[in-house]
Amino acid sequence: MTLKLGVIGTGAIGADHIRRCMQTLSGARVTAVNDINAESAASAVKSYAPNAKVFSDPHALIKSDEVDAVLVTSWGPSHEEFVLASITAGKYVFCEKPLATTGEGCRHIVDAEMKHGKRLVQVGFMRPYDSGYRALKAVLDSGKIGDPLMLHCAHRNPRVGKNYNTDMAITDTLIHELDVLRWMLNDDYVSAQVIFPRKTPKSLPHLRDPQIVLLETAKGTRIDVEIFVNCQYGYDIQCEIVGELGIAKLPEPSAVLLRSEAARSEEILTDWKERFIGAYDVELQDFIDGVRSDKLRGPSAWSGYAAAVAADVCIKAQVSGAVEPINLPAQPAFYN
Amino acid sequence: MTLKLGVIGTGAIGADHIRRCMQTLSGARVTAVNDINAESAASAVKSYAPNAKVFSDPHALIKSDEVDAVLVTSWGPSHEEFVLASITAGKYVFCEKPLATTGEGCRHIVDAEMKHGKRLVQVGFMRPYDSGYRALKAVLDSGKIGDPLMLHCAHRNPRVGKNYNTDMAITDTLIHELDVLRWMLNDDYVSAQVIFPRKTPKSLPHLRDPQIVLLETAKGTRIDVEIFVNCQYGYDIQCEIVGELGIAKLPEPSAVLLRSEAARSEEILTDWKERFIGAYDVELQDFIDGVRSDKLRGPSAWSGYAAAVAADVCIKAQVSGAVEPINLPAQPAFYN
Amino acid sequence: MTLKLGVIGTGAIGADHIRRCMQTLSGARVTAVNDINAESAASAVKSYAPNAKVFSDPHALIKSDEVDAVLVTSWGPSHEEFVLASITAGKYVFCEKPLATTGEGCRHIVDAEMKHGKRLVQVGFMRPYDSGYRALKAVLDSGKIGDPLMLHCAHRNPRVGKNYNTDMAITDTLIHELDVLRWMLNDDYVSAQVIFPRKTPKSLPHLRDPQIVLLETAKGTRIDVEIFVNCQYGYDIQCEIVGELGIAKLPEPSAVLLRSEAARSEEILTDWKERFIGAYDVELQDFIDGVRSDKLRGPSAWSGYAAAVAADVCIKAQVSGAVEPINLPAQPAFYN
Amino acid sequence: MTLKLGVIGTGAIGADHIRRCMQTLSGARVTAVNDINAESAASAVKSYAPNAKVFSDPHALIKSDEVDAVLVTSWGPSHEEFVLASITAGKYVFCEKPLATTGEGCRHIVDAEMKHGKRLVQVGFMRPYDSGYRALKAVLDSGKIGDPLMLHCAHRNPRVGKNYNTDMAITDTLIHELDVLRWMLNDDYVSAQVIFPRKTPKSLPHLRDPQIVLLETAKGTRIDVEIFVNCQYGYDIQCEIVGELGIAKLPEPSAVLLRSEAARSEEILTDWKERFIGAYDVELQDFIDGVRSDKLRGPSAWSGYAAAVAADVCIKAQVSGAVEPINLPAQPAFYN
Ligand SMILES: NC(=O)c1ccc[n+]([C@@H]2O[C@H](COP(=O)([O-])OP(=O)(O)OC[C@H]3O[C@@H](n4cnc5c(N)ncnc54)[C@H](O)[C@@H]3O)[C@@H](O)[C@H]2O)c1
Ligand SMILES: NC(=O)c1ccc[n+]([C@@H]2O[C@H](COP(=O)([O-])OP(=O)(O)OC[C@H]3O[C@@H](n4cnc5c(N)ncnc54)[C@H](O)[C@@H]3O)[C@@H](O)[C@H]2O)c1
Ligand SMILES: NC(=O)c1ccc[n+]([C@@H]2O[C@H](COP(=O)([O-])OP(=O)(O)OC[C@H]3O[C@@H](n4cnc5c(N)ncnc54)[C@H](O)[C@@H]3O)[C@@H](O)[C@H]2O)c1
Ligand SMILES: NC(=O)c1ccc[n+]([C@@H]2O[C@H](COP(=O)([O-])OP(=O)(O)OC[C@H]3O[C@@H](n4cnc5c(N)ncnc54)[C@H](O)[C@@H]3O)[C@@H](O)[C@H]2O)c1
Repeated sequence: MTLKLGVIGTGAIGADHIRRCMQTLSGARVTAVNDINAESAASAVKSYAPNAKVFSDPHALIKSDEVDAVLVTSWGPSHEEFVLASITAGKYVFCEKPLATTGEGCRHIVDAEMKHGKRLVQVGFMRPYDSGYRALKAVLDSGKIGDPLMLHCAHRNPRVGKNYNTDMAITDTLIHELDVLRWMLNDDYVSAQVIFPRKTPKSLPHLRDPQIVLLETAKGTRIDVEIFVNCQYGYDIQCEIVGELGIAKLPEPSAVLLRSEAARSEEILTDWKERFIGAYDVELQDFIDGVRSDKLRGPSAWSGYAAAVAADVCIKAQVSGAVEPINLPAQPAFYN
Repeated sequence: MTLKLGVIGTGAIGADHIRRCMQTLSGARVTAVNDINAESAASAVKSYAPNAKVFSDPHALIKSDEVDAVLVTSWGPSHEEFVLASITAGKYVFCEKPLATTGEGCRHIVDAEMKHGKRLVQVGFMRPYDSGYRALKAVLDSGKIGDPLMLHCAHRNPRVGKNYNTDMAITDTLIHELDVLRWMLNDDYVSAQVIFPRKTPKSLPHLRDPQIVLLETAKGTRIDVEIFVNCQYGYDIQCEIVGELGIAKLPEPSAVLLRSEAARSEEILTDWKERFIGAYDVELQDFIDGVRSDKLRGPSAWSGYAAAVAADVCIKAQVSGAVEPINLPAQPAFYN
Repeated sequence: MTLKLGVIGTGAIGADHIRRCMQTLSGARVTAVNDINAESAASAVKSYAPNAKVFSDPHALIKSDEVDAVLVTSWGPSHEEFVLASITAGKYVFCEKPLATTGEGCRHIVDAEMKHGKRLVQVGFMRPYDSGYRALKAVLDSGKIGDPLMLHCAHRNPRVGKNYNTDMAITDTLIHELDVLRWMLNDDYVSAQVIFPRKTPKSLPHLRDPQIVLLETAKGTRIDVEIFVNCQYGYDIQCEIVGELGIAKLPEPSAVLLRSEAARSEEILTDWKERFIGAYDVELQDFIDGVRSDKLRGPSAWSGYAAAVAADVCIKAQVSGAVEPINLPAQPAFYN
Repeated sequence: MTLKLGVIGTGAIGADHIRRCMQTLSGARVTAVNDINAESAASAVKSYAPNAKVFSDPHALIKSDEVDAVLVTSWGPSHEEFVLASITAGKYVFCEKPLATTGEGCRHIVDAEMKHGKRLVQVGFMRPYDSGYRALKAVLDSGKIGDPLMLHCAHRNPRVGKNYNTDMAITDTLIHELDVLRWMLNDDYVSAQVIFPRKTPKSLPHLRDPQIVLLETAKGTRIDVEIFVNCQYGYDIQCEIVGELGIAKLPEPSAVLLRSEAARSEEILTDWKERFIGAYDVELQDFIDGVRSDKLRGPSAWSGYAAAVAADVCIKAQVSGAVEPINLPAQPAFYN
């Protein structure tokens, strides 16, 4: 039976997920759509899901019989409300990151889900679905490089808009590393420190850029993440794991090798949307397959919570300049 | 409306295409299946398409109302018959390569399709759907390296089975280059020469391995293709275009960079099935989308014919040792 | 006129420098040799400089008319004494690193040299003579990547001996980065912090390995150096400069690209002696040319002093765990 | 004892070799110089060898007591005469390539040297001294890739002058491959074929560019060499050996890896003089050491002869378009 999906939020990623479900993926179709901006909803439906019903009330959409599962792709601050409502309705829900804007908000969802008694929530962290990160994890798990001791990472954007501020380097940018590295290492963060190098003149006055975040895990692995969102040259994601026996590095996206104008060169992407484009398909197909087989396997509400708790501390460390402890409760058996 | 597909031949690639249509792609389902080996058909249906009907007669399948379009994935020698029958039935047909085993057989199909008056046939050449070849073509078409003057290519397998013979280096192996390079260059072959280097001791007595095929195109571009099917080390596909201004090289599949045991290394695939695995999805989705929009865009019967004509001459050149002319008629406007 | 060199210390590097002067370089020959171990001196002379005179007293060697300039290649703790004596004798002196074992010792040399009134001392930091570091500096100085904001470095050895302790990660290993990065950036260090990741089980109990040293420069550039001396896989030196506009990375030593056994691979050196082998020749030729033209251009006593001061603070930071300030006096005009 | 060298021909490479002997290498000095252009000789002496004597007669230079060994760096057509005169004088002679302009000319030298009874001649083929080619040969000789079956090579220049003609693609360009591949493979050529791809519009009317030369060796190894002297983008030398078990590729010159302007890039040299710059030093030092130890080890007169014979046939094959046999007599024991 084809899965009936209801989508709340039809902006950039919402519309793209609708297209994905209707034209690329298998086993689901979008039957219901809502957006606070009615025009946006209408336009998405027109482009990709002509037979879907536009709901003016997101809660009516959640409850509707036309909806088997919900995709929450509205603005971050509205996620908590819609995810909680979906749990109340006993429906599976895929929620774009962040699960909630704070650790506390995420905790409400975790509590509600555990009370409900079954995993219903998948968070839209797509990097664990990226073929590159998967290959890297496969090498790590193979034992070829021994246990991980250090990670050197970088998250670089060519430039950011005026609204991007120093906090967002954590909540919007680092958040992906916070999730994917935890998954990669199967380990939890215990402290964070933030260092501010000499600021790039390409950054606006209100934004400290670049930043270096130093994380420590429970097992003692040390992680450094360079966040540099006005690096000019490209959207570039680096992750290198230094193990006891060797080093493994995230693959570069494959590119044509050009010999021209006195250089050997390979293109670097500049648009973040292209960097993990394949991962979105795999992620959403996995959600659909998970719902259809009544067992979710993707990033859980707990993952969303863990990332949010670490992000909260990183922001504190930006201000204090000190090494700040991260206290995440032990993961409940429910989430193993 | 979901497209109803009938599949003839449920061996390795047939079964995989059924799985693909049922679990990964959008807009189609397999409703009918046939194989000369009834057990094979039953098993494929059981694994991937429980609701599909097993036909004992492939021609009944082709004609059935339960079938909107046909996938021909049986052995090569049976392709011509099933493709011609599909055309007669006025149904779209996706045929795995080869379209027919000889240039002459392909010509029958071209003639039948032109007589029918509309493109109905797509040949299962998947390399033009590979993201690497597409990126390479994009660079070529951008003009960055100027017009192409030479191509250096290689098609290497770790090893081949006992049944693989010297001819098959052309008909089974080179055939993919014959198709994809013609597409890449938008040009036709005018001559072929085959050179036999010192034979690898890893090859069986009856097989001349490696071989080098030299092709010349109508525009004067020169192509060398190394075919080496007992190269031991991996399944490795190389394609380098030397242009007036620079050189562009087919991307290597992206891989984890490992530093260990006194080496920096990246894995090379050994199983051909993994090398173009993404391309099969794109290829078949394009066929489905093409049928649903009533306009095929993939490799045409003419492409199948052109590759077969060139292959016939390469085999002649293996025997003669001479430079042999390739005479392909001008492409009919029907196929532009 | 061929330069007459006297060498004090004929161990591993001393003997190698004698060979270098006699068989590879231009414009100098070794005429006098001393070692506390007379057998060692005799053996070096026999192998590479049969006409050189063996001195039993290093101070007699320094004063001898047979010696135009001195090479100090004895154990570190003896360097200060021999360099000071050379200055007193008014002779040019090339001193292997370290110039002295502490900042204070180096200061004595700096003071003596300034009092003498002319540069006489070159310190054996060879990395600024390495073609890779020079190419990297050329890119930085070209402005292509803008001003440097961050440096990510690594200094890895496959393994170390029993005598190697936690301090030596600074004084023997990091010391090369302390010199070359200061030269690269044309900047001074203002603080240091040391982080100890999870210890590798390959390290002996008394040695904390790996370590991460975080340095800050006067201009605000942030440097992280991973020191990992039991990394098993190779001798591997990494240096990546993140600038305002782009990133430049120290070249890997060039190596044959091998495709074999399901991998593309390039060899990594395992013996540190081979990594900068070309640089030793250039370094010593530059000393010889400098002496012959009466003007030294290589690493000065001030460079030796600056590296020693930073090293002293790094050792303090290993113990305190805190961010420790580095206070280097302003460089005297004498050294510009 | 320092070796006294006499140099005939003080053009580009002659002057450079004088500088090399006087300022970089060990064990020799230039004591005598001649050039048909007296001003050129005077200028070279002034710049690099102020104490050398300028001879107006090259034969007087060869015979002079002030000359232990001769460097012939005049124009190609004069080489045969000066090398023969050096042999007559019983002096060691280093002769820049070509040894003589034809196979026949080289044969005269071979015969004279054998009659003299001892190797006196080293030909200025410097690629066997290049660290990259040596590393490649070390891999081949290690057995890691098994016996060689095919070689894919390229010799590309950004552009050539007006005087460069179709023949010179062989005599000036391919000649280096003809020598170094023979050395690499320890094998002789038995046939040659030349293919002319579509001509680059960047080439002048009288020059066919690019060309592909196909060579066959006695052991059946097949070599293709692309010669492309108006490739625009750089001076680029490629050599890939396909063996029974794997493939080894000539290292690229090491270069800074740059991430900037949406690309990862490494510089390609554009000036041929820089490509093998290190090899010239090693080559000439080896000649000096060889003379001093009375035993030459570098490329012999036979190597010069073998390359010239192959070159003669390649020129014939350019005209005939056919596969032309190469008949080199067996190498006399004298040269083993
Ligand atoms: N995983 C990723 O890589 C990734 C990428 C992009 C965006 N995101 C996340 O997806 C979410 C949406 O991002 P976007 O780029 O599509 O933003 P967007 O601004 O383009 O779209 C958000 C849409 O939500 C609608 N909306 C806002 N509040 C609503 C509410 N209360 N009820 C219904 N609709 C509401 C808006 O009208 C808008 O159409 C964000 O949380 C973002 O962090 C994740
Ligand atoms: N595009 C590619 O990369 C690619 C890859 C693999 C195979 N192929 C092509 O696909 C075709 C099938 O290859 P395969 O590897 O699946 O072979 P296979 O032997 O595994 O399967 C072929 C199947 O066809 C059935 N069959 C044979 N003749 C039949 C007939 N007359 N009627 C009905 N069924 C019949 C057989 O019983 C068998 O089950 C071949 O033409 C091959 O060249 C293409
Ligand atoms: N720049 C580099 O990369 C590099 C590399 C290796 C060593 N070094 C430095 O060179 C120095 C020597 O190192 P090595 O590896 O050759 O050590 P080594 O132990 O092999 O040799 C040292 C020699 O000095 C002699 N010696 C010691 N004290 C002496 C004294 N008071 N008078 C005369 N001779 C004395 C010893 O007998 C020994 O022969 C050290 O300071 C080391 O740090 C630098
Ligand atoms: N191995 C290499 O990579 C390499 C590189 C460059 C040149 N070469 C070879 O070196 C030789 C010289 O090349 P170049 O680039 O220096 O050329 P060049 O024209 O710069 O110099 C040649 C010099 O020889 C002098 N000369 C010519 N005939 C003479 C004669 N009969 N007696 C005395 N002097 C004479 C000329 O006046 C001139 O000064 C050529 O054979 C060339 O093929 C080899």
